[in-house]
Amino acid sequence: MKIIGIDPGYAIVGVGVVEYHSSRFTTLDYGAITTEAGTEFSKRLEIIYHDFTQIIELHKPDAVAIEKLFFTTNQKTAIDVAQARGIILLVASLHGVPCFEYTPLQVKQAVVGYGKAVKTQVQEMTKQLLNLRAIPKPDDVADALAIAICHAHTAPSLMNQKRLAKQWKAAGK
Amino acid sequence: MKIIGIDPGYAIVGVGVVEYHSSRFTTLDYGAITTEAGTEFSKRLEIIYHDFTQIIELHKPDAVAIEKLFFTTNQKTAIDVAQARGIILLVASLHGVPCFEYTPLQVKQAVVGYGKAVKTQVQEMTKQLLNLRAIPKPDDVADALAIAICHAHTAPSLMNQKRLAKQWKAAGK
Repeated sequence: MKIIGIDPGYAIVGVGVVEYHSSRFTTLDYGAITTEAGTEFSKRLEIIYHDFTQIIELHKPDAVAIEKLFFTTNQKTAIDVAQARGIILLVASLHGVPCFEYTPLQVKQAVVGYGKAVKTQVQEMTKQLLNLRAIPKPDDVADALAIAICHAHTAPSLMNQKRLAKQWKAAGK
Repeated sequence: MKIIGIDPGYAIVGVGVVEYHSSRFTTLDYGAITTEAGTEFSKRLEIIYHDFTQIIELHKPDAVAIEKLFFTTNQKTAIDVAQARGIILLVASLHGVPCFEYTPLQVKQAVVGYGKAVKTQVQEMTKQLLNLRAIPKPDDVADALAIAICHAHTAPSLMNQKRLAKQWKAAGK
């Protein structure tokens, strides 16, 4: 299963591409889509659209995993991050790739094993699971890889749940 | 000058297309892009993307005018509206059409003449300025037309400001 993890943003979109097979990870690619401050906002969305289209067409993932948004104290930033996040969801949908969203709590639980893990613990575990020499920088990239791991660890149980629900339905339960 | 006014949303995107020439309006088209509740959110964004692309390619506007977003009490709704609004900005940018954003206060001032106008006053004035037989429904459509009028009334002074700023700069003021 090939997964692209995304840490959404409009200045930096963290991107991590991993392959998960037989409980082992292969890191295929990671980096960031960046747009410069001072660029017109619509243009920044266009850059994200073009760059993410290229990434998704190159890697042909089975799933996109993306961080769920919450409102922050800065309204303007939150609205702009949401507008940029819409572009990621759109590009995935245009390519028929399903999107899954995870909260930071779910990412911590799935990567480290408990929800109160601190950022450095998540980053260290990400590095180990993916056999990386160093923690990728900036944080957005490490976060994107962690979200991809989260989906890899969560998807099998999601699929089990769906299968069980189907069986129960078929059995009239 | 041909303007598309947009009242952003993810269930209903209000769209109004007007031509403004020699202080007179011609109403070219109005309606709504709608997406059904229960449809996967990414799919709703895709519908907005395709429908708005069709509209912009049909009308080839000089500008898109869109309502500025503010946070509401419902966080989830605001995030989803912002994600859908990003798609509108993207499509406009992909077609080289500049986007202008206006607050509800600016729309009221530009359409009715004062910022404390109530919704029905804005709708009535929209109907009169555009020579419509009735106020378009739903409200999102009437709002979109009002935003287009707002841009028509605001753009000339915006351009004047830009020209003056240029002249001042050239004159070393």
